[in-house]
Amino acid sequence: MPRKLMPDPEGLAHETRQPAIILCEPQLGENVGAAARAMANFGLHDLRLVNPLQGWPHPKARAAASGALRVIDNVRVFDSLAAAIGDLAFTYATTARQREVPKPVVGPRAAAGRLRSLLTAGSRAGVIFGRERIGLTNDEVSLADEILTLPVDPQFASLNVAQAVLIVAYEWRIGELADEAASLPFASGAGEPAPREELVRLFEQLEGALDAVNFFRPLEKRPHLVQSIRAMLHKAGLSEQEVRTLRGVVAALERRPTRPRRLPDGSITTERGKFE
Amino acid sequence: MPRKLMPDPEGLAHETRQPAIILCEPQLGENVGAAARAMANFGLHDLRLVNPLQGWPHPKARAAASGALRVIDNVRVFDSLAAAIGDLAFTYATTARQREVPKPVVGPRAAAGRLRSLLTAGSRAGVIFGRERIGLTNDEVSLADEILTLPVDPQFASLNVAQAVLIVAYEWRIGELADEAASLPFASGAGEPAPREELVRLFEQLEGALDAVNFFRPLEKRPHLVQSIRAMLHKAGLSEQEVRTLRGVVAALERRPTRPRRLPDGSITTERGKFE
Repeated sequence: MPRKLMPDPEGLAHETRQPAIILCEPQLGENVGAAARAMANFGLHDLRLVNPLQGWPHPKARAAASGALRVIDNVRVFDSLAAAIGDLAFTYATTARQREVPKPVVGPRAAAGRLRSLLTAGSRAGVIFGRERIGLTNDEVSLADEILTLPVDPQFASLNVAQAVLIVAYEWRIGELADEAASLPFASGAGEPAPREELVRLFEQLEGALDAVNFFRPLEKRPHLVQSIRAMLHKAGLSEQEVRTLRGVVAALERRPTRPRRLPDGSITTERGKFE
Repeated sequence: MPRKLMPDPEGLAHETRQPAIILCEPQLGENVGAAARAMANFGLHDLRLVNPLQGWPHPKARAAASGALRVIDNVRVFDSLAAAIGDLAFTYATTARQREVPKPVVGPRAAAGRLRSLLTAGSRAGVIFGRERIGLTNDEVSLADEILTLPVDPQFASLNVAQAVLIVAYEWRIGELADEAASLPFASGAGEPAPREELVRLFEQLEGALDAVNFFRPLEKRPHLVQSIRAMLHKAGLSEQEVRTLRGVVAALERRPTRPRRLPDGSITTERGKFE
């Protein structure tokens, strides 16, 4: 796509495929910074402020952003909510309490899906957040298409604005990634499960070692005990390396020499505690 | 269930069906408070601290908890991670970077599902979080069954411990509620859609009003224009009250008296701007 060849005076063409976050009259610079930090963690960068009470830029916002400078340096300030959402085709108003306005109410997961559909279709969209203490006025809510609220415990509903932004941004990112596991910054280090023949060799080695010390008594119980032990080893989902380690553990516990082995220099070793 | 009849010296029987949150050597009291606040919003109450660096209790923790006293007042402090997780049957270690330990790595959504299965089956489980700057040591990670990490943007991964707790607690609560819409603290205020006959009366009133001012010109275009207008009104999903309001709006814009109407006192009114 020839994105870079198109005129983009604001440098924001790449942001049109993600929702804008609009904060109405935020009272504290640090909350703006914390919201910016929350956004950056989940890949959102279009932050707009309506009449920030402490002015803009604000040093505490920068400090609280904890390095989210791509967000902080591109903040745009507006003198009305209407101006801040002027270029958007759809907005959610985030509220913690029920309003008298007859609007659909959705949660952050449904909202993320809707935002994705809109943005994929080429529309710009955003999510509006209110003041720290009193949220959005009914007048401001009336400018939004729908209401977004969070599934908090009704007995303790007290999220601050940056926490609410964090949840919305998180759901946006989760929804963007089809598969949660694939979206994580690193993958499981557990390794592939060992080939079953290696696991069976471990079974045989361990059961042989236990037979040698008369572990299975009375002998009628042997089949049941063997099954229990094998089940535990199965549940562990052992990798090839882990099977090797366990076989070494068993050999070591047996305190028996490994089978004699010829070393490269031609000598024979029966070193304890290793199993070949 | 006879829960209340069973001895419960710690008053924590009701907490066994939810995961414990364990913070390892948190450096700042306010972060403990912010984590407690995050937990309470999503219905978690079992917070355990391993060697909090500023001691416990801590006034800044209480202030930052913003009223989450059920969590703060029940915090338990331990002198080792092993002691803090001693009664649990399964734990996740939360890490932001890959570790050398061969453990499964999951995201918060999968973890919430696994925790739910375990707790439903009667096992206790928990999620371990590390220090603000350096997270968990490899030794601490080795005490956990699996690794939990968050799907952050690899280009800006900088969540603080309270933000990480917030996401985990949110996913726990979302997973607990089968249906996101049902889990929200209030429902849509949009009202039932109006009966279609009322919507049709609105169509007829509006189209009649437009006919009266020769809006539909040339007349061949009338059917298409009528369809467009009706489609817009359909999309709005109007409630009965909204239809009544719109009919009043149309009547008012027509600047015509409503149909004469007999009032209870027997007089006749032709009041403007209302439509009966």
